[in-house]
Amino acid sequence: MKQTKQPKRQQRPNKNKKKPTGKIRIIPLGGLGEIGKNMTVVEYENEMIVIDCGIGFPDEDMPGIDLVIPDISYLEANKERLKGIFLTHGHEDHIGAIPYVLRTIDPPVYGTPLTLGIIRNKLEEHELPWNPDLRTVRAGDRVKVGEMEVEFIHVNHSIADACALAIHTPLGTLVHTGDFKLDTTPIDGGMMDVVRLGELGREGVLLLMCESTNAERPGHTPSEKKVGASLEYIFSTHTKKRVIIATFSSNVHRVQQIIDASVRHRRKVAITGRSMINIVNAAIELGYMKVPAGVLIDLTEIKRFKPNELTLITTGSQGEPMSALYRMAFSDHAQVSLDGNDVVVLSSSAIPGNEKLVGRIINELSRNEVEVVHDAVVEVHVSGHACQEELKLMQALTKPKYFMPVHGENRHLSANRELARYMGMDDKHIFLSEIGKILEIDASGARFGGTVPAGKVLVDGYGVGDVGNIVLRDRRHLAQDGLIVVVATVDFTTRQLLSGPDVVSRGFVYVRESEDLMDEVRRVAADAVSDVIGSRYGNDRMLLKKRVRDDLTKFLYNKTKRKPMILPVIMDV
Amino acid sequence: MKQTKQPKRQQRPNKNKKKPTGKIRIIPLGGLGEIGKNMTVVEYENEMIVIDCGIGFPDEDMPGIDLVIPDISYLEANKERLKGIFLTHGHEDHIGAIPYVLRTIDPPVYGTPLTLGIIRNKLEEHELPWNPDLRTVRAGDRVKVGEMEVEFIHVNHSIADACALAIHTPLGTLVHTGDFKLDTTPIDGGMMDVVRLGELGREGVLLLMCESTNAERPGHTPSEKKVGASLEYIFSTHTKKRVIIATFSSNVHRVQQIIDASVRHRRKVAITGRSMINIVNAAIELGYMKVPAGVLIDLTEIKRFKPNELTLITTGSQGEPMSALYRMAFSDHAQVSLDGNDVVVLSSSAIPGNEKLVGRIINELSRNEVEVVHDAVVEVHVSGHACQEELKLMQALTKPKYFMPVHGENRHLSANRELARYMGMDDKHIFLSEIGKILEIDASGARFGGTVPAGKVLVDGYGVGDVGNIVLRDRRHLAQDGLIVVVATVDFTTRQLLSGPDVVSRGFVYVRESEDLMDEVRRVAADAVSDVIGSRYGNDRMLLKKRVRDDLTKFLYNKTKRKPMILPVIMDV
Repeated sequence: MKQTKQPKRQQRPNKNKKKPTGKIRIIPLGGLGEIGKNMTVVEYENEMIVIDCGIGFPDEDMPGIDLVIPDISYLEANKERLKGIFLTHGHEDHIGAIPYVLRTIDPPVYGTPLTLGIIRNKLEEHELPWNPDLRTVRAGDRVKVGEMEVEFIHVNHSIADACALAIHTPLGTLVHTGDFKLDTTPIDGGMMDVVRLGELGREGVLLLMCESTNAERPGHTPSEKKVGASLEYIFSTHTKKRVIIATFSSNVHRVQQIIDASVRHRRKVAITGRSMINIVNAAIELGYMKVPAGVLIDLTEIKRFKPNELTLITTGSQGEPMSALYRMAFSDHAQVSLDGNDVVVLSSSAIPGNEKLVGRIINELSRNEVEVVHDAVVEVHVSGHACQEELKLMQALTKPKYFMPVHGENRHLSANRELARYMGMDDKHIFLSEIGKILEIDASGARFGGTVPAGKVLVDGYGVGDVGNIVLRDRRHLAQDGLIVVVATVDFTTRQLLSGPDVVSRGFVYVRESEDLMDEVRRVAADAVSDVIGSRYGNDRMLLKKRVRDDLTKFLYNKTKRKPMILPVIMDV
Repeated sequence: MKQTKQPKRQQRPNKNKKKPTGKIRIIPLGGLGEIGKNMTVVEYENEMIVIDCGIGFPDEDMPGIDLVIPDISYLEANKERLKGIFLTHGHEDHIGAIPYVLRTIDPPVYGTPLTLGIIRNKLEEHELPWNPDLRTVRAGDRVKVGEMEVEFIHVNHSIADACALAIHTPLGTLVHTGDFKLDTTPIDGGMMDVVRLGELGREGVLLLMCESTNAERPGHTPSEKKVGASLEYIFSTHTKKRVIIATFSSNVHRVQQIIDASVRHRRKVAITGRSMINIVNAAIELGYMKVPAGVLIDLTEIKRFKPNELTLITTGSQGEPMSALYRMAFSDHAQVSLDGNDVVVLSSSAIPGNEKLVGRIINELSRNEVEVVHDAVVEVHVSGHACQEELKLMQALTKPKYFMPVHGENRHLSANRELARYMGMDDKHIFLSEIGKILEIDASGARFGGTVPAGKVLVDGYGVGDVGNIVLRDRRHLAQDGLIVVVATVDFTTRQLLSGPDVVSRGFVYVRESEDLMDEVRRVAADAVSDVIGSRYGNDRMLLKKRVRDDLTKFLYNKTKRKPMILPVIMDV
């Protein structure tokens, strides 16, 4: 017996197997040190996948910019190795860059039905050089990509059909949470799959990449169901008024709850705002939303109903100046005008930076005696992101060997690191990374190793990447103090000023009330021109421009303490 | 007896006295429908006083503007009637416009010692045509102004020496709260004078003007003393680290508490930031702050001490990019560089609109492993403004006949009105006003009657009021998409294009990478020029410019979906 057993033991799968010699590389291309434009590259040896493909919003120091996408030159340079983009859910900061990225690369794109439904909607507005290869998956599915396998795991979030990802590699399993919260009473789709996450933890998770959005907030994020109770309260206490509710169009469960409350209170529901109409239609088609027949009406039909027979669901909860709610508030909406018979509910919270825009709407509504209910008054909004206790739960479930906080500004990443330390994780196993930085993991451990190009690509109108730092610096300069254009026509052969200098200004002072100042500007410019063209350097056009610029800058700063952009144009006849 | 009594009764003071025939006029010139630039005119018959004289901060749609002051053309036109400016306290939004207003009018300015101390400091940086007439008063003082009498009443606020005002008129007493809170355990100066306010209420208050800043917030604002406990906790739990605390320089009691805690923990205190140094010096001189000898050290001396022997008190709690804290965070401060041995305490809350700036500092500190404590983590800040229960207390004390909410955006004014309604006040006695709107009160009642000029005057550099809507519109346009200057020299007698068109752009695209586009721009401009000068309208310079502008705008919008400003300059030789 002994002799027969011995060889068996030697053959046991993990016993004498060689350590895997492969290498994992994790490269965030967005979402670290910033909110938005989430994108992470995962490589095992020669094969590469990408998790998420989001946009970011421009900072206040990027005037004129519409949106920001990740720099994907690393993906473009390695496109033959890229086996797929895996999307965790359908929010803009996770999928918004898909239409731009698919202009230069064309990997398969994997996502759940609602996620891909939203993408199909978006792609209709973009022309691509090829038909995108969109592949539908569901929570629980596993997709084989060479030696890696990507598993979709159900999580709760403020959009339906959201997933975390487990990436199984020969070296071990990586878990990327995507955006998540733990909701024990979700509206649909069940609680986050803590069992599967715990199983992975028991089997051994090599690296956890966990979102950090709410890592500074103690406690638990409340359940979406809590909003339902608040909505019921609002409908019960406003039985005479029309109810207008603004929320994020992608929050399918929120919209479902608003519709449910409206049905209970015998109200018809009209939807307004393009993105709200698009997503509600997609959600109904795909079965993520259930609306009894006869409840939804067109906005043109609202005249037929009394205020207390109506609910309007609208976009504009962030105060966006072209949104339906903004136009209603400022009496600029064709079908809806608001007054004391209306209550406006902001079922949302202002994204940092949007507080003033949202405030502008609340002020205008208050001025017109429209009642406003926002989340400081009644709990009409809950976050979609895990707070500290849920983040600790994720650590406790997955028990990772290594940890990389993702999705957040540095303050959030640091706070998430604090939580991992609190859970007892060794500081050397926590990797606070940044975009472009490579984390290498192999059998002997994990370490940072080198960088790849990464950054922000700015989208302005049709232009992708044609606005950079120099253009932005000029825009900021122009915005601060305006500009002064000085034009002179010079005959450089005879050294004669033929015409001008003419002075044109924009954004500097109100010219009609500053004629004396503008006369002085002309005189200073004329002196500078005649000085230079009369001198031995009179043919040096660069010098001439520099002198005009310097003299005027100095003169104007002393006079006004402002520094407008000075633009000398010398015409040579 | 009966006969002797009868005539006595007829002589009782109020019995047969005639109703006063005078008229009160209340005219807000700032602070309603906005945060800041507080200023209210009070007139009785021919005499006029002004309450407060503050600045506002520019909105995000006012690029390049430094600050905003009230339009005082009404005061200038009536300066012989103006008997005094009465200041409630020394915050910028109540006194900041004094140096600008005193350029054209010169009434006496009344304020408490700290308020006037801060003004004297400010005035040193301004040249005025006369010596300002500053008159010191203290809580309890009454100043006679013709038939009016102004009484200063002690209140609690986030600056020492703050007062409400009672304005006694022949028609009755007006109460203006200024900014206030009720602090039962203030650091110095005693609790708000509720007794005097209650006495006034018993005697009868005709009109209450009550601040509205926190009217949306339920409950009570915590005492300043609460911050002391938090500071003690921070010092006790950071015995190895240097402590850097940023707060509002004007919060003398906060600074006092920081110094007290430092003394208890045997730390030296260094002050940094110009306004902090100025106000601390003024407060010590005037006796509002007490610092034991040997505690304050100069910033240049900090090298002589270990981290745990030092506290730094700094400006920059709003994330201001030139502030001491900002420069420390971004390693740009001559004396102080921060690292893991430091804890930075933000003893403040972000003013709406400043969240991103404050966030930028927190992120940079987190990136450099500097610990940050802000009011979401520990209660290191309390508001200076009354919450709902305190606002109700003010109503209950003063029992006013009429009510006008002041100091706040429309949302805040509306919320304050709701509180008055809740207290049982008749809706017809509540006046929601706006700047420039006259509230008239006489013996027969109160009503709105007419308006006076009111608005925003923008300060940009040395310029006061020379930047208006047209200039701002141009600045915003330039910031959005930049500009293109097209210059052509034309001989209009021979109808010949002598030189150009030359094209210069700024803030539009990165020209070096867009040469093809710029070539096309030149061609479109050239076509437009030659078309027009070759036509029968060839001498019409306006038409020529319009054609260049229109053709280029259309071309560029189709090509780029952007609308840069087009600036055609035609030189005539």
